[in-house]
Amino acid sequence: MANRVRELIESGRVAIGAHAKVPATATVEIAAAAGLDFVRFDPYHWPYDHETLAAMTRAAVAKGITPWVRCSVDADTIRQMLELGIRGFTFPCVSTRAQAESIVAAVDQFVSASGVERREILVGCAIENKSGLESFEAILGLDGVDIMSTGPSDLAFALGETDNTKPIVQEAYARILETAIAANKHVYLSTRASRNEWGKARQWIAKGARVLIIEEEYRVLMKTLTNPHTWTPCEGITQ
Amino acid sequence: MANRVRELIESGRVAIGAHAKVPATATVEIAAAAGLDFVRFDPYHWPYDHETLAAMTRAAVAKGITPWVRCSVDADTIRQMLELGIRGFTFPCVSTRAQAESIVAAVDQFVSASGVERREILVGCAIENKSGLESFEAILGLDGVDIMSTGPSDLAFALGETDNTKPIVQEAYARILETAIAANKHVYLSTRASRNEWGKARQWIAKGARVLIIEEEYRVLMKTLTNPHTWTPCEGITQ
Amino acid sequence: MANRVRELIESGRVAIGAHAKVPATATVEIAAAAGLDFVRFDPYHWPYDHETLAAMTRAAVAKGITPWVRCSVDADTIRQMLELGIRGFTFPCVSTRAQAESIVAAVDQFVSASGVERREILVGCAIENKSGLESFEAILGLDGVDIMSTGPSDLAFALGETDNTKPIVQEAYARILETAIAANKHVYLSTRASRNEWGKARQWIAKGARVLIIEEEYRVLMKTLTNPHTWTPCEGITQ
Amino acid sequence: MANRVRELIESGRVAIGAHAKVPATATVEIAAAAGLDFVRFDPYHWPYDHETLAAMTRAAVAKGITPWVRCSVDADTIRQMLELGIRGFTFPCVSTRAQAESIVAAVDQFVSASGVERREILVGCAIENKSGLESFEAILGLDGVDIMSTGPSDLAFALGETDNTKPIVQEAYARILETAIAANKHVYLSTRASRNEWGKARQWIAKGARVLIIEEEYRVLMKTLTNPHTWTPCEGITQ
Amino acid sequence: MANRVRELIESGRVAIGAHAKVPATATVEIAAAAGLDFVRFDPYHWPYDHETLAAMTRAAVAKGITPWVRCSVDADTIRQMLELGIRGFTFPCVSTRAQAESIVAAVDQFVSASGVERREILVGCAIENKSGLESFEAILGLDGVDIMSTGPSDLAFALGETDNTKPIVQEAYARILETAIAANKHVYLSTRASRNEWGKARQWIAKGARVLIIEEEYRVLMKTLTNPHTWTPCEGITQ
Amino acid sequence: MANRVRELIESGRVAIGAHAKVPATATVEIAAAAGLDFVRFDPYHWPYDHETLAAMTRAAVAKGITPWVRCSVDADTIRQMLELGIRGFTFPCVSTRAQAESIVAAVDQFVSASGVERREILVGCAIENKSGLESFEAILGLDGVDIMSTGPSDLAFALGETDNTKPIVQEAYARILETAIAANKHVYLSTRASRNEWGKARQWIAKGARVLIIEEEYRVLMKTLTNPHTWTPCEGITQ
Repeated sequence: MANRVRELIESGRVAIGAHAKVPATATVEIAAAAGLDFVRFDPYHWPYDHETLAAMTRAAVAKGITPWVRCSVDADTIRQMLELGIRGFTFPCVSTRAQAESIVAAVDQFVSASGVERREILVGCAIENKSGLESFEAILGLDGVDIMSTGPSDLAFALGETDNTKPIVQEAYARILETAIAANKHVYLSTRASRNEWGKARQWIAKGARVLIIEEEYRVLMKTLTNPHTWTPCEGITQ
Repeated sequence: MANRVRELIESGRVAIGAHAKVPATATVEIAAAAGLDFVRFDPYHWPYDHETLAAMTRAAVAKGITPWVRCSVDADTIRQMLELGIRGFTFPCVSTRAQAESIVAAVDQFVSASGVERREILVGCAIENKSGLESFEAILGLDGVDIMSTGPSDLAFALGETDNTKPIVQEAYARILETAIAANKHVYLSTRASRNEWGKARQWIAKGARVLIIEEEYRVLMKTLTNPHTWTPCEGITQ
Repeated sequence: MANRVRELIESGRVAIGAHAKVPATATVEIAAAAGLDFVRFDPYHWPYDHETLAAMTRAAVAKGITPWVRCSVDADTIRQMLELGIRGFTFPCVSTRAQAESIVAAVDQFVSASGVERREILVGCAIENKSGLESFEAILGLDGVDIMSTGPSDLAFALGETDNTKPIVQEAYARILETAIAANKHVYLSTRASRNEWGKARQWIAKGARVLIIEEEYRVLMKTLTNPHTWTPCEGITQ
Repeated sequence: MANRVRELIESGRVAIGAHAKVPATATVEIAAAAGLDFVRFDPYHWPYDHETLAAMTRAAVAKGITPWVRCSVDADTIRQMLELGIRGFTFPCVSTRAQAESIVAAVDQFVSASGVERREILVGCAIENKSGLESFEAILGLDGVDIMSTGPSDLAFALGETDNTKPIVQEAYARILETAIAANKHVYLSTRASRNEWGKARQWIAKGARVLIIEEEYRVLMKTLTNPHTWTPCEGITQ
Repeated sequence: MANRVRELIESGRVAIGAHAKVPATATVEIAAAAGLDFVRFDPYHWPYDHETLAAMTRAAVAKGITPWVRCSVDADTIRQMLELGIRGFTFPCVSTRAQAESIVAAVDQFVSASGVERREILVGCAIENKSGLESFEAILGLDGVDIMSTGPSDLAFALGETDNTKPIVQEAYARILETAIAANKHVYLSTRASRNEWGKARQWIAKGARVLIIEEEYRVLMKTLTNPHTWTPCEGITQ
Repeated sequence: MANRVRELIESGRVAIGAHAKVPATATVEIAAAAGLDFVRFDPYHWPYDHETLAAMTRAAVAKGITPWVRCSVDADTIRQMLELGIRGFTFPCVSTRAQAESIVAAVDQFVSASGVERREILVGCAIENKSGLESFEAILGLDGVDIMSTGPSDLAFALGETDNTKPIVQEAYARILETAIAANKHVYLSTRASRNEWGKARQWIAKGARVLIIEEEYRVLMKTLTNPHTWTPCEGITQ
């Protein structure tokens, strides 16, 4: 099976995904029906049963969207996720080049053992702490790292700030993404489901960002349940 | 435990609820966090496991919102739902006064066996077919029926129409709700999560409707995932 | 597989069982480890998943104790319980001889279709309402009804009393059990886990009762968790 | 949410808890109904599904009792347990001051990332092996360790004894608890559900112990199912 | 979605299916990988959880094979199966024309309510008892009944025989199938996984039978596990 | 409980087992009904829920066959598997004598803590990589390692070959097994369910191999579903 996200971003289009934190196949199927391109699971923070995660992954494969995961930087975990059918990764808090190399090695080992092609898999590293900030150029210089991401709140914490709108934080954020784009890596962005945040995301897309994930599906649902009368249909980016 | 919906509507306020069709406690907890007042399960149409439905009901009780159900008009089913902790009912396609009486009898039997007070339970009858249209005055005349509801699409089908905006359908719809309000029964309405539909619901609230349910949670989620950039926060009815 | 309860009671010994209402195999395994002879499931009132009930039944079979059930008087339900491996039944609120005949017919149909011997199955009828009180002699006269039971609270309700210690209730209770014993039917009794109630049960055992069930396992657990310091080991009936 | 156990023990009262090893929410709900203050899960030794443990934790939170866990000394596991809602910990076989420091650091990291207050969490270290016996004073000297515990059987094994009633074992046991109390740490004790064991626990409570856990719930159930006729109600400590 | 079985049989080819009694999606996926055309679930006899059956149905849809079911002749059950996504039916023990009419009516009601086309659904009636034997011509004369089936063992029982190889049984069997084929109904056959039985099935296929189901998957597995060294690959019918 | 595999192989007979990868108790029960001696689970590669694996293990114990596992070389995992009831192990990619010693130490620690006898447990080491090839004599020299296994494909990869029929691979394979047999270790072999492969397995049995596992149960099922007409009963090894 081809990796839908890779196909889109390598042809210059944008791939949009949803988080699926509710432990059920519903969000996966809804995301596919909504026209999205990938769905991200988070066993790093969330108590999915193994069989539930397997069922959610199978649902994504069945619908032709890319199953994505945030998981620990651990060779056994990476192998198990790939065996399950996961084809996109965001590794949290990647701190050193050596760590990134261990990730790439684990993926390569699966590729040689399974016969799955390497290009069916996307490897993303998230820069979220001080050590990562110092090493990110070495990390993105590594072949086998396909995607880079970061987040203002984590950067603020790493820089000893509490306000993520401070220039020092915003500059670090922009520098990571711009450096990655300049180095021909893909860039992965989060956005809230709101007109304002979407505007910011569009600016990054204009600069070359190609992977976009909407905030957690349970927050999306809660926002609309809190104010269901605000919803207004309009022409979508996703169609 | 008191019935939050009854407390609200008997003091003249509006109770707002959500559908919970995804078989997981997530929607129940999201609905409670969003400030809603009840959550409706649909074992009549949806394949919940018994233990899942029990867990969802317990989650609603734990959060202080009323667990509601659409279920068959069947004495055994009604008893089991009440034993589970369900405290609000919508019975589909109620067709005759005799059927409504059998519902009320099943609820009363549970009340006398369990010690739960009758006023903790809300019984709603949905008028959805031709026979129901003919019998609805007899049905709403029955003590023990607390709530009436109906729907334009079902009425259109019952009246042999395919377009539910036709005057004959709209008049039947309005007549049922108005007759129920005039007879001091509560009225239960569905609304889509959109500014326009919400306006229509407000008109019925102005006329005395007191129970409002937002469209299925998976549709809510899909709409926003399809067009996440349209979401605009504004001042809510629910707060 | 032989029916352990039948083997015990036909050789004049007493069979003791536990309720298993928690939807897990734990109570079944605990009951077997405690030396009990059967375990009773209650899908009539309790929301077990089908697969959970199947697993609990298999656990009982694996441990050599008789899986018992309270279920509706319904031919399809009876067939499914027998197919699952259930070998003891308590049918609630049996009201007429015709109802008892329909139970026996459903069991016989399974026997002829499956090759399981009829004596591996035990059929119990509970007399719990007014109509049952009037028909119980006809019911216990039926070949194929192996066991009779009743309960003071249900009898009180059936007789229009609220106090189940009243002579009229106690007499009805005793009459049903004594008539059944005189007619060579087995008698099934419930007892609370307490020294006092156990004394009453012993009196009925002296008169010929042979099947004894301890109150619900979750009540047993709650009582001891409430007062764990009261528990005193002593020589058991069960050993 | 406040931590009920901390509130009780900081105001000089005793907190009593139950083990919940059966993978279902039943024991949690029974423990709450029995008036207990916390419930302890044991994923260190017991095969709970992740979603089951999440559901049991939510049930404890819903009932206002503190969800407690025995889990590995591992930063990822500690973070996941805290994210799940766990608020009390017993770490097995803590052997060195460095290990205790890593526990405290993992908890502090969650506190700073989540906004949960540190005092909502209770950290307990169990001294169970030889190295722990040598290091326990250094461990209990660490700020951030709230509770100490130990057990005679583990101490016997650590000391090369097979009989845990030997003076050398009993003295080590008493020394750990007394040193902890003298250092203003809380002390956590296990007790069997029996009059005799309860008497021993009361002596420690008189000396300052404040957290008491009743033996495994499945043992409690098995003991009473084995001898249901021994149960005698009396005035409880728990009420 | 088109119905793969109907497409095959209406173009004169044979559709082959497997039973899926193990409550897991594995058999469904294996059957699809083996090149089969449909998979049959049996909630009539087997304790699937509702959510398991939903997952198995989704798995069949995802793989493009037709999800089939044996279920009770009951309008609510038929509606729920269709809502789940089931598109093929075998109704057991159809006894009268009136019963067959009620089946067809329930299917038609779903068709008009859902917008699913009638030809996406296949309705099969099994002749298995005496009354069915008398009524089968009236049943197969009904528009809306697509498929007929029967079985020698059930016929033997219906005819008061214990040996299903007796001419009277074999003749009845042949007469039902031949009459159905002559009336342009499709015929559904079971076969054991063995060279000999397969030969008999081929004879019926030569006469016009078009739907073939292999014996239960757990029997298939058990046979090969019992004698794994007997398995010999050869050219298949299914490829 | 005795270990059925050890009993068989120590008395010179052959123990035959099945893989159980489908996450359900069905395969376990089928393997027992087919007369097999053990069943192997693979949490190393397969996403079983913890409770599912517990249920599958209990099912094996209930049927008297040995529950076997392939799991990581990790002390916590080994302890948890033993606590679950697992009594046979295949450790993948054992590379050094030190690793084998850590396995044996973890098993011994469980034995001393639990009272289970050491001979109820079987420890198998798989030689699958280059380092293992170099160390296998040191590994099989270790008391506490009961069984050795290897596989041609893994050996080929370790030796830098792609064709596992090459003499260098076949010789390495034979050398490991023969050395183990000569050193009085047991040898564990995989075989496909086919007449030809079975013949090869028989040759190794003639040389002293005593543990034989049939290929994955889902492959067995798929092969027969693909070609159900090929199955031919014959006299089995297993009976």
